[in-house]
Order: sequence, then structure tokens, then C-alpha cells
Amino acid sequence: MPHISLNSDDPGIRGLFRFRPETARPLNQLAEVLLRGESTLTRGERELIAAYVSGLNECRFCCSSHSAFAAAQLPEGMELVEQTLADPAGAPIPEKIKALLAIAGAVQRSGRAVTEDLIVDARREGATDIEIHDTVLIAAAFCMFNRYVDGLGTFAPDDPAAYAAMAEVIVTAGYAREAAPAEQQSR
Amino acid sequence: MPHISLNSDDPGIRGLFRFRPETARPLNQLAEVLLRGESTLTRGERELIAAYVSGLNECRFCCSSHSAFAAAQLPEGMELVEQTLADPAGAPIPEKIKALLAIAGAVQRSGRAVTEDLIVDARREGATDIEIHDTVLIAAAFCMFNRYVDGLGTFAPDDPAAYAAMAEVIVTAGYAREAAPAEQQSR
Repeated sequence: MPHISLNSDDPGIRGLFRFRPETARPLNQLAEVLLRGESTLTRGERELIAAYVSGLNECRFCCSSHSAFAAAQLPEGMELVEQTLADPAGAPIPEKIKALLAIAGAVQRSGRAVTEDLIVDARREGATDIEIHDTVLIAAAFCMFNRYVDGLGTFAPDDPAAYAAMAEVIVTAGYAREAAPAEQQSR
Repeated sequence: MPHISLNSDDPGIRGLFRFRPETARPLNQLAEVLLRGESTLTRGERELIAAYVSGLNECRFCCSSHSAFAAAQLPEGMELVEQTLADPAGAPIPEKIKALLAIAGAVQRSGRAVTEDLIVDARREGATDIEIHDTVLIAAAFCMFNRYVDGLGTFAPDDPAAYAAMAEVIVTAGYAREAAPAEQQSR
């Protein structure tokens, strides 16, 4: 049961977006720019960072949904996502992504946990300033989204099919669609 | 020294906004809606929640700036802000704000730390669903902003006058001004 009376049965953050469209708009625009905007990190890689941080924060709705969004946009699919979340250092992912996940894991604990060593490691694997910036902000943003979703006691579906269906919408239409007023959505 | 090469000497989040205007826009729009948009909580009360969470996260730039923004918009000024941050339960603030700060403090630890008891307490003091929603999202958003600012190792001025000057801009022009393209800012 959510802590407040929502105006729909939509699960997780979707019910919160419907309840408060004024804040939904910038939140979805942020997700769109960070996870789907122009970047040298693939959409799948960025969703993997989001899923990883959500797992560390034990946010079931966000971890399940962004794992599904990552799996849908990585050639290796859900198996790689699960391997990465269980053991990021040992997973068969590029060294640069491992180094960025280490930064994201530090951000999850505290901004002050990001050490110069972690940055040097990421640079050595070829990470650019923008990639480091975006990794820190994706990790920080999911420390927000996770707290928002769980802090209001929202509902998380058990059925993986629910998250796979959400993935289809995100992969094809993106996050900003949900930020648009109703009349724009029908265009 | 920031962890990445910024394109200005602007302190804290301001340097990050200048470095990456694509993400600055939704971040500032979120701050504008949450901290200055229509609400039954005053702007001063909402900035107090932001400053309180930033203090718990030990983010010097955000705590100093939002304390200044709160002080500038509360009749009792900085003395009340400092009392509240040091001892929220004992400070001379309304019981409803104390109950909302307790929720914000839980969110700072984890979304899952928000208990039904905290919600019941806030309701008993007259908090509405929207006020509870916005408190959770303000607290969650500052868990993002704080990690963003410190995770990239940005610079925080020592001089209180620097934060007072920022407060003047925020109080008169708001956050969304910074989100607008340069040509709109000069209008």
C-alpha cells in the first residue's frame, strides 16, 4: 500500500508520475537526456548503471525495470545484466564500464566516496570527462528515483512480463513521452 | 579541484550546470517546481527541508546555499535555520514541519526507512498527501544534488557572502532562469 492516496493503480514511479505531473515532467526529461540522449555510452550501458545503483539501493521496482530496459538494449540481454549486478568486476563487460560502475557504486554510498583513484582508473580505461560526469549524475539520479519510489511505499509487480512490457515502451518511445501533456502524446 | 575539467570557475553545482546545460535544464526545472512552485508549504519551509537533507549528507555547498535560500525566505532568518539543522525536534518551528523533517531524514538514509508511523505522525499534524509527496521528493532530490556536487569534487566557497549573493538571485529570479538558454536570460 502506498503511503499516500494515488489517483491510479499504476505501479512504482508510474503512479507517482500520474499523481504529480508537475514534477513528472522534469524527472522524465532528466531520464531522457541522461539515459537516451546523445552519448558515447550506449543506451544499454547507461541503463546498466541505473539498474546497478537501483540494486545497491535495494529498490525492487527500479532495479527490475531498468534491468529490463538494459537487457532490451544490450545484445547479450538479461543474462549479462544479471551477471553484472551480481559481480560487476567479474562480468564480461568492457573494462571502462567496470571502472564507471565502480564510480557509480561509490556515488551510491556518498558523493564524498568518489576518490581520485576511481577517476584515474576510469580515465586509464578511456573514460572521458563527459562519461564520468554522466555516470556520477546517473548514479546520483537513481539515488533520488529509488528513494522517491520506496519512500512513498509504491507497489512493485512480481511478474517479469510487467517490466518487459514497460521496456518495450521505453525503448521505442522513450521517457520524455511520459513528460508530455496528454494532447501531445496522441500525436 | 573538481574530478573533471570544467569550463568555468563557478563553484558547486553552478560549474556543473555550465559544463552540461542539457542536464542543467531539467534539474533546474525540478528545483523550480519543488522549491518555488505552487504549494501549501512556504518557499522558506521547502528550502529548510533541502538544507536539512544536505546537512545530513554533509554536502557543504548545497547545505550552505540552501540554508541561505531558506534564511532569505523565512521571517526568522538564519538563526532559525541553524537551530533547525542542529536540532530539528527542538527548534521553534511548526509541529507539521518537524514531522516532515523526520520523513526527510528517513529518506536521506533510504526510501525503505520511511515507516507508516512517520506518515501517521505527519498526518496528525495536518500534513496533506501532496505535502508528504513533495517532502519525500525534495529529500530524494537532494540525495541526488548532494551526490552530484560532491561526486565530481566541486569547489565550495568559504565566504557566507557568496551564498547570500546566490540567495538574492534565487529569491528574485528562481531556478528556472538558469535552465533557460542564454538569449532568454538577457530578456
